[in-house]
Amino acid sequence: MIYLDNSATTYPKPLAVQKSLQTSPMLFGANPGRGGYKMSTDTANEIYKVRSLIAEMFNAETEENVVFTSNCTHSLNLAIKGLAKTGGHAVTSCLEHNSVMRPLNKLCENGNFSYDVANVFSDENKTVASFESKIRSNTDFIVCTYASNVFGDILPVRKIGELAAKYNIPLIVDAAQAAGIIDIDIKRDNISCLCMPGHKGLYGPAGTGVLLLSDDCLPDTIIEGGTGSESTDFSQPIFLPDRFESGTQNTLGIIALGKGIEFVRRKKLSYIREHENELINIFYRYCIDADFIYVYNRFNSENFVPVLSFNLIGIPSEKTADILAENNIAVRGGFHCNISAHQYYKTELTGTVRVSVSAFNTKKDILYLTNCLNKIAKFKKV
Amino acid sequence: MIYLDNSATTYPKPLAVQKSLQTSPMLFGANPGRGGYKMSTDTANEIYKVRSLIAEMFNAETEENVVFTSNCTHSLNLAIKGLAKTGGHAVTSCLEHNSVMRPLNKLCENGNFSYDVANVFSDENKTVASFESKIRSNTDFIVCTYASNVFGDILPVRKIGELAAKYNIPLIVDAAQAAGIIDIDIKRDNISCLCMPGHKGLYGPAGTGVLLLSDDCLPDTIIEGGTGSESTDFSQPIFLPDRFESGTQNTLGIIALGKGIEFVRRKKLSYIREHENELINIFYRYCIDADFIYVYNRFNSENFVPVLSFNLIGIPSEKTADILAENNIAVRGGFHCNISAHQYYKTELTGTVRVSVSAFNTKKDILYLTNCLNKIAKFKKV
Repeated sequence: MIYLDNSATTYPKPLAVQKSLQTSPMLFGANPGRGGYKMSTDTANEIYKVRSLIAEMFNAETEENVVFTSNCTHSLNLAIKGLAKTGGHAVTSCLEHNSVMRPLNKLCENGNFSYDVANVFSDENKTVASFESKIRSNTDFIVCTYASNVFGDILPVRKIGELAAKYNIPLIVDAAQAAGIIDIDIKRDNISCLCMPGHKGLYGPAGTGVLLLSDDCLPDTIIEGGTGSESTDFSQPIFLPDRFESGTQNTLGIIALGKGIEFVRRKKLSYIREHENELINIFYRYCIDADFIYVYNRFNSENFVPVLSFNLIGIPSEKTADILAENNIAVRGGFHCNISAHQYYKTELTGTVRVSVSAFNTKKDILYLTNCLNKIAKFKKV
Repeated sequence: MIYLDNSATTYPKPLAVQKSLQTSPMLFGANPGRGGYKMSTDTANEIYKVRSLIAEMFNAETEENVVFTSNCTHSLNLAIKGLAKTGGHAVTSCLEHNSVMRPLNKLCENGNFSYDVANVFSDENKTVASFESKIRSNTDFIVCTYASNVFGDILPVRKIGELAAKYNIPLIVDAAQAAGIIDIDIKRDNISCLCMPGHKGLYGPAGTGVLLLSDDCLPDTIIEGGTGSESTDFSQPIFLPDRFESGTQNTLGIIALGKGIEFVRRKKLSYIREHENELINIFYRYCIDADFIYVYNRFNSENFVPVLSFNLIGIPSEKTADILAENNIAVRGGFHCNISAHQYYKTELTGTVRVSVSAFNTKKDILYLTNCLNKIAKFKKV
């Protein structure tokens, strides 16, 4: 299989991640933070090491600011619902995934919350000005994606962070397609809540996510329960990470995620991004030259993450994905859980075929894909 | 290590569960429900098989009624928050875990919700009468544990289910210590929301949980996001399981959970319960005979799940657990994320040492424990 659906989840995982899933069930099979015996403390120590890796990678204040969640959607819900106040307001962008739009719309259901959508332009300053124009006196937070999961557009998050700091409004960032690819520093970038999946660019297993909180941001909770701490108190602990980590965590997944993050560190973020950009650039240039393909944006590696959406002219996106699947190529067709971005790119009726690469893809994979697309086009002409 | 902390998480996991975690990352490493290519549909099919196993085991209407969550706490929060109405009310028991009590208290924070606590008696009918006495016209749901995670007391859930049906109030059951040990049938028992961890009596890995919904129960959502379905809609889908499964699920964990459930089916629930009861009974009789041990309840296998709490007289529970840990025995000391049950048993100042067994424990393990306790007592006398 030529796997080009890495925006959905990276595949394969690094060997160390796979090996971790093989050995951890016996080595770290206890419940961390719930017992004082060796395997429980060993498991807790392993989890702490992963917090350390994440805190260092994204420049969090301490390991405690690293909250483990089950996926990026979970992180986003904790941040969005935790910062939303009754009668409050949010500012978001026109490129957001349903993991941002659905929670925002849910908050608006009873009429006690509202949000405005900022436009995204190729001129960063115009984008920031659009965000600024939407800020109100009751704005609780700004929430935006770091990079579109459909078209790869990178938002000027640092400048949006400066804006958020200027107005003293927390900034929530959906880094689903950015973590492990773009250098993110929550202090430098003024990010209050950095939401990430563990299973995409950080190469951990599915079922892992991270909510990274700045030191001055303490959202309310939407999930409470046993934390192994302050057990005699009916209230949720206020301190991190326990406040947001109720119930037994995905210990094996988190420990394996640590191996994924070590893989990214070893490879280096800059190398991974450069490598992936090179592959997507090859495919982009192919698309531009092929008269039977429509590609939606002028891909360049500075303003985009290595995710590309296209359509074969006259063939529905899902159909193209199906034909490619028959040819052993894994890409995703359709709407990618994001109608906002499709409205922006005027693909809300067709969807797109999305190609997304990981550190493991090679030029051969792209060549296989382009050969296959050529064949489809030829067959269509016949 | 003599592992006797199976109420926290079962250890070891069955070989098939471990093997699944070894092979799935390569076989089922794609994102299910997000792609039409083979590995994505293969992964979706594997997940569906696990839904099937669970639906059958607990007699759910269809596979779609099986919602995967990250743990039992997550399931309980979805059920409790999803059924609570503004100005509403809940009835719960005096033995509840913080995963029930903290969400309930959170709901009460703004004064728009309240709950009452029913007493538990050795006479089932008195327990049910206590529940009935707490029901009000604005009661949104009853929520109770199937069995105490500290002392093992089983609540008369079938009779509470009859009561719930009589008043047409949904019943939420915390089956953290019951699933995989007690025969539960959500239709027969009138359970609207059955909340379970995957990593305890169902022998799956940590990071897995289940919310099983009856056909007539559709809670509101507290987490929304991408579901791979109805992507062009800003509202969360209304249909199951998508309504409650936003974001990428713990696919490897869920597939491994399926192997755990198959293990329970093969072994048979009745055998597992009998085996575990035998072990706890041996330990219980030892405790009763030992003048240096205080045990809190008259354990019998009909009214209790195989979980036993005790204290060494004059030694704090955590200290006892620590000494046992030094002797390579894993038990848990302290409060077990449950102050309600400790207040009920008047152990709220001391906590308890908890011994909990799994299908993998043997009489030798109990003998090792009792020998060790004898040594501690002897040493203490010297």
